[in-house]
Amino acid sequence: MISIESKENTFFKLAKKLKDRKGRNKEQKYIIEGFRLIQEAFKAGCKIDSIVVNADGEKKISQYLEGYIDNIKIYLMEDSLFSQLTSTENPQGIIAILEIEDKRENLNGDFYLLCDKVQDPGNLGTIIRTAHAAGVTGIILTKGTVDIYNDKVIRSTMGSIFYVPIIHDNDLSFLKELKNDDFSLVATSLQESKDFFREDLSGKIILSVGNEGNGISDEIFDMADIKVKIPMPGGAESLNVAIATSIILFERVRQNISNK
Amino acid sequence: MISIESKENTFFKLAKKLKDRKGRNKEQKYIIEGFRLIQEAFKAGCKIDSIVVNADGEKKISQYLEGYIDNIKIYLMEDSLFSQLTSTENPQGIIAILEIEDKRENLNGDFYLLCDKVQDPGNLGTIIRTAHAAGVTGIILTKGTVDIYNDKVIRSTMGSIFYVPIIHDNDLSFLKELKNDDFSLVATSLQESKDFFREDLSGKIILSVGNEGNGISDEIFDMADIKVKIPMPGGAESLNVAIATSIILFERVRQNISNK
Repeated sequence: MISIESKENTFFKLAKKLKDRKGRNKEQKYIIEGFRLIQEAFKAGCKIDSIVVNADGEKKISQYLEGYIDNIKIYLMEDSLFSQLTSTENPQGIIAILEIEDKRENLNGDFYLLCDKVQDPGNLGTIIRTAHAAGVTGIILTKGTVDIYNDKVIRSTMGSIFYVPIIHDNDLSFLKELKNDDFSLVATSLQESKDFFREDLSGKIILSVGNEGNGISDEIFDMADIKVKIPMPGGAESLNVAIATSIILFERVRQNISNK
Repeated sequence: MISIESKENTFFKLAKKLKDRKGRNKEQKYIIEGFRLIQEAFKAGCKIDSIVVNADGEKKISQYLEGYIDNIKIYLMEDSLFSQLTSTENPQGIIAILEIEDKRENLNGDFYLLCDKVQDPGNLGTIIRTAHAAGVTGIILTKGTVDIYNDKVIRSTMGSIFYVPIIHDNDLSFLKELKNDDFSLVATSLQESKDFFREDLSGKIILSVGNEGNGISDEIFDMADIKVKIPMPGGAESLNVAIATSIILFERVRQNISNK
């Protein structure tokens, strides 16, 4: 275990950069917090660069991570420095630094979710967790979507972020490829007249959801093959975006299971 | 407009009590914040006891609430006192005090949601908003559920709290009455084998969801007529409770529309 007590330490300075998106993009690394999430990252086979503990975390590390950490670099950090790397209200005294991995090679399947400029970290995290449960092949993010390595996104995914392939499709080339490969793009909007469950959502499909305030952007909406609404028989004017996403994702699940 | 500048003012002391559940229960009043929510409360016909503004809010009140406030008592409060009554990070300078209303007399319909010891305010608020969109007759809350007049619950409902009848069923007598009236209680659990969409959820039904960590309590589960799971073809172990709720609520919506 390597002790770090100075804010001039090179590793500390690098870790601190990972607190914002620019630093994460440059270093291609990100931070996760807490024993449960780190256990999950090990189980998922993520590439773990290093672990950092404070005095509290050091006491518990062998208990929680036994069998996982034999070949991992571990830093013991002064609490005044350690606390600069954490974001949770009650840190457990442990963080891990993970490598950002491109999981495009794992894309085998016919069920995508596209998130178009979703802004709220909690919403995106919940969407990733739900999409994982629904068994999506991958999640496509358009330019302008909140960074998935934001600490609130990671926490809300409850570990699902380590499993679901996520594609940053800034120029929409990936989406266009899928469409050329006979995938249908489904867009939801409050203005459409057709109910989502009246459409065939089995087979090669990309379900899409948009920004909290503005919905799906014109660019994506114009590319859609199927346009639907979620009927709301009650009086509410709209649904939270993570809720709307879950309803259409699990309609696909329902149709696929029912068709078998 | 009545000016309040002293922390010894009777109205200020009463308003401050409404910041916690005990005070709200005793006074049968609660606080809401912000122009949009207050507009919605007026539109919904809520009983509004009074409005409180600081100097900022005073400037905007006639613009946002014109036509609504002619017969409402309005207090102008020193900012140091006003800020003790708000909870949002960026208060808009206005709050309203509403009377807690019992809406049981409005219960006309065959579609209930029961929330059993849901703990997270954001989850309960999102559930209320989604249930409103799905057109529920009412929401039944068991003892041990987070207070619906908690400021985070109210914010997450986006105004739906003013519309959906909510029944605090501490002794489960209301649930028992419904069951005697041929309502079927549907419980979801990760352990069940039957998929939720294979059951008939139309007609007289009570859908139920449970606590974030522990699910539905044994007491409610034992009363259930139908026990189902939400199938998760992906690897995630569970769903967020608001997400699970929305999936079953909208399966009911789907079945009802499809049957027509």
